[in-house]
Amino acid sequence: MAEQTKISVTDVTLRDGMHAVRHQFSVEDVKEIASALDQMGVSHIEATHGDGLGGSSLQYGLGKETEEDFLKAACSVIKNAKPTALLLPGIGTVDDMKRAAEYGIKAIRVATHCTEADISEQHIGEARKMGLETVGFLMMSHMVSPDILVEEAKKMASYGAQTVYIVDSAGAMMMEQVRERISALVGALDSSVEVGFHAHNNLGLSIANSLAAVEEGATRIDCSLAGLGAGAGNTPLEVFAAVTEKRGIRTGLDLYKAMDAADDIVRPKMHRPIQVDRLSLTMGYAGVYSSFLLHAFRAAEMFKVDPRDVLVELGKRKVVGGQEDMIVDVAVELEQKQQALQK
Amino acid sequence: MAEQTKISVTDVTLRDGMHAVRHQFSVEDVKEIASALDQMGVSHIEATHGDGLGGSSLQYGLGKETEEDFLKAACSVIKNAKPTALLLPGIGTVDDMKRAAEYGIKAIRVATHCTEADISEQHIGEARKMGLETVGFLMMSHMVSPDILVEEAKKMASYGAQTVYIVDSAGAMMMEQVRERISALVGALDSSVEVGFHAHNNLGLSIANSLAAVEEGATRIDCSLAGLGAGAGNTPLEVFAAVTEKRGIRTGLDLYKAMDAADDIVRPKMHRPIQVDRLSLTMGYAGVYSSFLLHAFRAAEMFKVDPRDVLVELGKRKVVGGQEDMIVDVAVELEQKQQALQK
Repeated sequence: MAEQTKISVTDVTLRDGMHAVRHQFSVEDVKEIASALDQMGVSHIEATHGDGLGGSSLQYGLGKETEEDFLKAACSVIKNAKPTALLLPGIGTVDDMKRAAEYGIKAIRVATHCTEADISEQHIGEARKMGLETVGFLMMSHMVSPDILVEEAKKMASYGAQTVYIVDSAGAMMMEQVRERISALVGALDSSVEVGFHAHNNLGLSIANSLAAVEEGATRIDCSLAGLGAGAGNTPLEVFAAVTEKRGIRTGLDLYKAMDAADDIVRPKMHRPIQVDRLSLTMGYAGVYSSFLLHAFRAAEMFKVDPRDVLVELGKRKVVGGQEDMIVDVAVELEQKQQALQK
Repeated sequence: MAEQTKISVTDVTLRDGMHAVRHQFSVEDVKEIASALDQMGVSHIEATHGDGLGGSSLQYGLGKETEEDFLKAACSVIKNAKPTALLLPGIGTVDDMKRAAEYGIKAIRVATHCTEADISEQHIGEARKMGLETVGFLMMSHMVSPDILVEEAKKMASYGAQTVYIVDSAGAMMMEQVRERISALVGALDSSVEVGFHAHNNLGLSIANSLAAVEEGATRIDCSLAGLGAGAGNTPLEVFAAVTEKRGIRTGLDLYKAMDAADDIVRPKMHRPIQVDRLSLTMGYAGVYSSFLLHAFRAAEMFKVDPRDVLVELGKRKVVGGQEDMIVDVAVELEQKQQALQK
């Protein structure tokens, strides 16, 4: 790594952070946070429901504001950074994306499970046609090998993605896993395609993993103020600003402004502390979706087994979203094993 | 690193964690925490005032309990681990150490500033004569080069220390700094002397730095439940248990018991969340003693400069404890610079 590596930081306080406040940021909150972010040197400010465009629903959690009010509020105060929205095909539509662009969104990040890049084709293609900057987002990237991720990333790039992210949705990656995945993508993709990394802190490694990603050639890193995000949160922006400065990596971030916004604006708005507790640590350790937690706890209670054992087993079996039936099956099997041991 | 590296974990919840609760753990708290720790596979349980034996005082903060009651309570419940006490020469005395041994303490960690190992000679020597296990603790180890640390560590070993620790008191080390310091000590000390590492999380790197230390040959790692400790806290034991298990490092820790004790016993006793906030991040970024914080904030207020600039400048000048006069000098200089710029 050259001494003066230059990267850019995308802030996700107003998107991934929405999970941590049950999507309840108000128009005033959004304006306050987006303005502060816009003054501290981030290149992109992502502001969307936690589950992306169209996410505000009974299934994914109703937002406090309509999507229109929320996005317009964010875009109204962002002068320096690019207002950005997340879209998960299946939840958000091309129409949602068009409206978002009308509200002032300039970049779209299209997110799929790490083996399902093909479902991003239409959205990435349409976004490019609309003149939006496009980013592909490979979620749960810890579940598959670097080779598979390369194939999926190439698909996204071929659809028009200008950047592809390795996304550690469950905060389950050790540094080596980050290194091998980022370096594989950097080596395999056309040099015009940037590689990004999105961490979660469930194993206490968000800062170290983000640094490792930069060392392997990632030029786009996701952060959030005070780490506000799902599970144990994301890479805390103000901490990343400090360590990159110490390491001689240029981010353009203003360290003091980031510290002040984290402590004075974001922490007072938190519903719960962002920490590596039993739930978030188990999620990172097992490498499973956060949406499995509640189901696993219910099933574990029913069959009197430890919910952590259920989650660890689900992680081993690489169960993905849509296979929630497996959760009860696993709990039953564990109960039977437990009973056999007691005999 | 061999796949099955074996290390041992010293818990400091009841010593470094005492700073975070202003030394107010009761006899009941100590018994509850020490018992839980004793069941989860740590090799040593350090239980002392935050500033070590003799630390309970107006200057360093009065403990809720007398040293006698506190140590006896801890030792009364510890059956598997070694009850351990910290001692800073100048605060604690040889007599304090003798009394601690009478109360049941089996290991003494003698801590000095990283360039002052010579003041540990008497205490380490006496501890060995008393049949106690002895550990040397080189505080603020980020401030000097690996070569100097090697010289200081050799002194401690020559006095009889069976283990020497690199201590990142300010949480200021990047992973490379940990690697070069630990590998220097491992290479230079007699193979009968173990090398340990004590992290703080001020830069969000406690887990990564502790793993790096193990990779370089450290066999003793300090942790605390939920990271309870000064500043941004120590390496969280339960998280370290999870990452070492994922990495194939044998610690003997019981992950679920550690998670449960962190969430159910320690977090409810916290006075404040253990987090990387403006204060603790500045401390790690600047690389200064936590005891400077209050002085720096007072001086900064008086001269209307940013206290963080004062701390950063103190870090650059490598100011150490006892040189607190420098804090006002630095604030005055920064004020003058500021005024000159405004003209």
